[in-house]
Amino acid sequence: MTTAPWRDPALPAAARVDDLLSRMTLEEKTAQLYGVWVGAATDGDGVAPLQSEMTADYDWEELITYGLGQLTRSYGTAPVDPALGAQALARAQRRIAGAGRFGIPAVAHEECLAGFTAWGATAYPVPLAWGATFDPPLVEEMARAIGADLRAAGVHQGLAPVLDVVRDPRWGRVEETIGEDPYLVGTVGAAYVRGLESAGIVATLKHFAGYASSAGARNLAPVRAGIREFADVTLPPFELALREGGARSVMAAYTDTDGIPASADPSLLTELLREQWGFTGTVVADYFGIGFLQTLHRVAGSPAEAAHAALTAGIDVELPTLKCYGKPLLEAVRAGVVPQALVDRAARRVLLQKCELGLLDEDWDPEPAAAIDLDSAANRALARRLAEESVVLLDNPDGVLPLPADTRVAVVGPRASDALAMLGCYSFPSHVLAHHPDVPTGVEIATVLEALRAELPDAKVTFAQGCDTSDPDPSGIEEAVARTSEADVCVAVLGDRAGLFGRGTSGEGCDVTDLQLPGVQGDLLDALVTTGVPVVLVLLTGRPYALGRWHGRLAAVVQAFFPGEEGGPAVAGVLSGRVNPSGRLPVSVPRVPGGQPWTYLQPPLGLAGEVSNLDPTPLYAFGHGRSYTTFAWESESAGAEIGTNGAYDVAVTVRNTGERAGAEVVQMYLHDPVASVTRPDVRLIGYRRLELEPGEASRVTFHFHTDLSAFTDRSGRRVVEPGALELRLAASSAEVRHTAHLQLTGPVRVLGTERRLRCETEVSGAG
Amino acid sequence: MTTAPWRDPALPAAARVDDLLSRMTLEEKTAQLYGVWVGAATDGDGVAPLQSEMTADYDWEELITYGLGQLTRSYGTAPVDPALGAQALARAQRRIAGAGRFGIPAVAHEECLAGFTAWGATAYPVPLAWGATFDPPLVEEMARAIGADLRAAGVHQGLAPVLDVVRDPRWGRVEETIGEDPYLVGTVGAAYVRGLESAGIVATLKHFAGYASSAGARNLAPVRAGIREFADVTLPPFELALREGGARSVMAAYTDTDGIPASADPSLLTELLREQWGFTGTVVADYFGIGFLQTLHRVAGSPAEAAHAALTAGIDVELPTLKCYGKPLLEAVRAGVVPQALVDRAARRVLLQKCELGLLDEDWDPEPAAAIDLDSAANRALARRLAEESVVLLDNPDGVLPLPADTRVAVVGPRASDALAMLGCYSFPSHVLAHHPDVPTGVEIATVLEALRAELPDAKVTFAQGCDTSDPDPSGIEEAVARTSEADVCVAVLGDRAGLFGRGTSGEGCDVTDLQLPGVQGDLLDALVTTGVPVVLVLLTGRPYALGRWHGRLAAVVQAFFPGEEGGPAVAGVLSGRVNPSGRLPVSVPRVPGGQPWTYLQPPLGLAGEVSNLDPTPLYAFGHGRSYTTFAWESESAGAEIGTNGAYDVAVTVRNTGERAGAEVVQMYLHDPVASVTRPDVRLIGYRRLELEPGEASRVTFHFHTDLSAFTDRSGRRVVEPGALELRLAASSAEVRHTAHLQLTGPVRVLGTERRLRCETEVSGAG
Repeated sequence: MTTAPWRDPALPAAARVDDLLSRMTLEEKTAQLYGVWVGAATDGDGVAPLQSEMTADYDWEELITYGLGQLTRSYGTAPVDPALGAQALARAQRRIAGAGRFGIPAVAHEECLAGFTAWGATAYPVPLAWGATFDPPLVEEMARAIGADLRAAGVHQGLAPVLDVVRDPRWGRVEETIGEDPYLVGTVGAAYVRGLESAGIVATLKHFAGYASSAGARNLAPVRAGIREFADVTLPPFELALREGGARSVMAAYTDTDGIPASADPSLLTELLREQWGFTGTVVADYFGIGFLQTLHRVAGSPAEAAHAALTAGIDVELPTLKCYGKPLLEAVRAGVVPQALVDRAARRVLLQKCELGLLDEDWDPEPAAAIDLDSAANRALARRLAEESVVLLDNPDGVLPLPADTRVAVVGPRASDALAMLGCYSFPSHVLAHHPDVPTGVEIATVLEALRAELPDAKVTFAQGCDTSDPDPSGIEEAVARTSEADVCVAVLGDRAGLFGRGTSGEGCDVTDLQLPGVQGDLLDALVTTGVPVVLVLLTGRPYALGRWHGRLAAVVQAFFPGEEGGPAVAGVLSGRVNPSGRLPVSVPRVPGGQPWTYLQPPLGLAGEVSNLDPTPLYAFGHGRSYTTFAWESESAGAEIGTNGAYDVAVTVRNTGERAGAEVVQMYLHDPVASVTRPDVRLIGYRRLELEPGEASRVTFHFHTDLSAFTDRSGRRVVEPGALELRLAASSAEVRHTAHLQLTGPVRVLGTERRLRCETEVSGAG
Repeated sequence: MTTAPWRDPALPAAARVDDLLSRMTLEEKTAQLYGVWVGAATDGDGVAPLQSEMTADYDWEELITYGLGQLTRSYGTAPVDPALGAQALARAQRRIAGAGRFGIPAVAHEECLAGFTAWGATAYPVPLAWGATFDPPLVEEMARAIGADLRAAGVHQGLAPVLDVVRDPRWGRVEETIGEDPYLVGTVGAAYVRGLESAGIVATLKHFAGYASSAGARNLAPVRAGIREFADVTLPPFELALREGGARSVMAAYTDTDGIPASADPSLLTELLREQWGFTGTVVADYFGIGFLQTLHRVAGSPAEAAHAALTAGIDVELPTLKCYGKPLLEAVRAGVVPQALVDRAARRVLLQKCELGLLDEDWDPEPAAAIDLDSAANRALARRLAEESVVLLDNPDGVLPLPADTRVAVVGPRASDALAMLGCYSFPSHVLAHHPDVPTGVEIATVLEALRAELPDAKVTFAQGCDTSDPDPSGIEEAVARTSEADVCVAVLGDRAGLFGRGTSGEGCDVTDLQLPGVQGDLLDALVTTGVPVVLVLLTGRPYALGRWHGRLAAVVQAFFPGEEGGPAVAGVLSGRVNPSGRLPVSVPRVPGGQPWTYLQPPLGLAGEVSNLDPTPLYAFGHGRSYTTFAWESESAGAEIGTNGAYDVAVTVRNTGERAGAEVVQMYLHDPVASVTRPDVRLIGYRRLELEPGEASRVTFHFHTDLSAFTDRSGRRVVEPGALELRLAASSAEVRHTAHLQLTGPVRVLGTERRLRCETEVSGAG
């Protein structure tokens, strides 16, 4: 018996897949194009389709008759011991492989945004916290660790990262994003992708594209945006993460932009993504997103029409149902309504990826290790470093922080003593367990209160919750005021409870109408500051909140986004001084709760104060963050005349002029004084985080290339225009330290696909 | 001496202008392209350039050396007796004509949005109130009266109407718009244009285009919108007002859309406006807007570059300065940087318009009438009718309204006793006099308090202001509560104070961050409802405010936008029952203050409640309004199969089934179940206001043509697609009475420029 060509690992993947496709029936091909949402049985015996209103009532045996392309969330729905979960997944895979004629297992998907979304897996800080670190190498390391854990558990594809650029901080999913700047999102996102892919896991860029711009910040609402905003703000992180991260999958966004649903947009999913960018992986649907073409976008009249539209656009895989790509697609192809070639195209991509993943090989063996530790000490150390780097000290005017060792501290607030306060909505405990308080979270999480007590053993630490996170009952405020009055300092730990679809104050479907602190937390804070006792505000939030009401009335402000399972010690370390804060804001902090949408990427018209009574400046600017030490900056890069295809090195020497080690984040912003279309007043085009001992100096060189000044012109081309440019070296978008003036000469240069997307930096010691 | 051809009224205008241009120097031509902001001297002696920071320090004699194309706001800056103002303008015109070689006077411009913006002129209701009348013929009548007054005063061009479609109710200029539906704005706007133009006044459509979509509702902020939103929501009112109103001027908007400033956009101002739509009039700049290309958009590096960009785009006239079209343009043409042909093109348009206006004729005579009455009894009667038709009764669940004749009424609130509460920011008294309380307004304006006392002579009417409109001082609330407690009913008159640039709560530059009632008016209302005395809320506002907080707690809600100088009696008439309310909402009234932008034109994705915790439904829907009588609707138009170039008549009979005369507004909405791009769930495509005596019935027939279902497809074409359509006859966008189901057959039809924009209606008695 000879081995069929498709089984032969010596042949090229394309040849193997061609052979395989030639042997498959239509039923077998379409079966590769969908996946179902399953849950591992707690006894490790297998997985079964999740039974819920959102998923159909499948018969498992019938489902896998012709094979099954994808399986998703086997770990994500119940607290199952990871080793048992891995066994269950392996058994399910063997059944799937055994059911079809070819013995092909499914691609196993899992959520893994802020860590593998499995019970007992490390809960890392959320992406907004990664953004605050300005430290892509560390994010890459985290993603590599996440990838290794996914791989050990039998998962092939991770449904992360989220590369949406914040356009309106009221949107519930802001916590899942890396921030409001496309360059920051793209560079940190690409690092995440490199990490995950280096562990052999297929990274999935989502949500492609436009989702974060949903009108009124309402989850899934239509996006109002033109082609230039889309090209220059929404798309760059995806391009960067594909080109420099090597992601092998992309998820189509739920939303529609200017009337065109992403899931039915061939110009986006095929022309741009594949033909221009050269992407060769798979495009997967967001959950139920293909069906939404009928029900929520109404560009399709039936599931078959939705399948046709999505397949034509370039979606290869329906998740986590087969409502469109199952029977409706099959019948439409049989009826000649949908060309078989569309099914073949998608099946080829799916099978090519399976081939790359070794799932077509005869020696494929899903047997997992007997013991799986998804929260190793190494993981925890990584989670700790990320958490520590992500805490942003917004203000500390009188040096109240760090707290003295023997002080009397009143810890107050609804987020001080809740372990879930550390986690975003896509961490397993919040995603699944938040409403099952009796089940242990699976990982140890110290609260800020616990960590602060450990951090300051000689201090007298009292606690009063003051109020609930979102409940309007103010009755606990009195006690909090009393505790505060007896203390030297009050640490008010306020913020969000992450959840899903209205069950939290932040998270998917937890959108807000303005940026007031949730519930009566603002009233609690008002009451605390009126005591006269210095109040240190610690925010554990999934989005920025308006703080103008307390400006000048707080002793210090610490912004931690959801910092993960090691967030308690990280925050407490900043309060005690063990950790020198080094995070920088990935989103602006506004003065007032209303006035959205607004981010720092404003063209001058959006910053013109005199024409409106609304103040267009934020309270704390994008990129802002303070340290317990001080830094001096020196640069002699005055600028030059260069061609429109030229380069210029900007160097700056930063010295730690304070008493203790610390990190500065050198940021480079571009200011384009005159362009053929309106441009943001400034935008980030480079940054470098520098760790410096007291007295130490480093010289960082930014290798600026004119490609970084490119933008989309009136005709939709990406161009570099001649004229003046300013490269502003800055400690935040509002704190410029040095400016290099460039004069670009030569013709308008139209960029092709080979353009530079990232500014290389180089660091050398400087004595 | 023979008459030059350009002076010969027997020759065609084009020939006259060609001849004139051939005789003019560059200096003389450019002098036609700008205008200055002047103010009439109070002694009637003449006008002089307004001296302010915003305008340059011109020398009048030097300014007019080569003539002067335009003069603006001679009435608009100080309280001058109109007859003296007209003499001053006439003298200024003679000087201008006398200074140049050709004796050509200026085109005299004035604001005239809600009436001629001159001291002593009738202050009509604001456009949002016109929208509420759903009565274009009445608006046309008003505009004809405004036009006649402008003409008597020597004005040639009126800077109205505003055709911006509300996209975010927080925007300060919402009061100047006709509402949030393009069809309503277009039909009412076209009626205004017809009225003004029929009086010989050049109507100016503004702001072309996109201004109302300014991001975050911040005045002038960049607009985020794609080509479909722009084509299907922003542009239709302009096309309607040009085609069906015959406007002869268009004002370029301040803003930029997706990076392209309107004032520098040839595709908008030339390709679309002139080449596609066939417009032959003049395009004028918004005030200082050409200079903003350099300072606020930064697409020009100098005033000369700004002039070049604006002239290339198609702006013929700079207002109200010559900072760009003066010396900078002159020098740029001399230097060969700007082609002379661009100057000629603009000068030709300006001179053609002057020719049409008779300003090139030898018998031109600016001498005005000796007496000018800008607030005639006829005007006041018109203002009264409009005001009465514009008051919207939002709610009256228990029939508290109309008030009994002998009741005890506590009138409360900061807008009850202020005459300026009736006026928008573009009425002369608010525009100019609001901050000069000692100068009489020039017209008689009864407050709601005064009018209610007159309306209910047998009632006991007490008054307490309660609080200021915007001041946060709550100390007056107690007295208001006391007055209320002694009364049978409380009439709380709350709302906005219109002003400019932050000096009001509504008006140009008076944007808000959310839709809370200004100041502590919400606290006042809370206090009033807790008395247990029935509270009738009367709103005199420039925008909708969130009323969900009081839903179910108010005895009645009356929404009057700024109803003009006769607004007091109109509102009091509704309260007393003399007037049967018939206004309908031109904007949705939301439940909560945040969550913008939102209007009723949502595609289904924007209405999907289950995906977000935010409730996407308004409290009172677009088109909503109650009456003191009742109406029964009957229709047998079930629907039909028609071609994509077909028509269908929908008829409905409406009978007044109550005890008193009243008006119903029959509205027709289109619901398109499946389209190739996402479409609003419903949108207005026809309406007719019916006045009916008790027992009377009228049959109204809507002549629906498929062109009305057209939209912009993915490729940017305007198409009619085959498939199902629903025509919903409704009392509001949320209150459907009958549905006709159409099936459109045939191919996709691509529309040219000849398409139908308006749904004709026909009314017949029905016994």
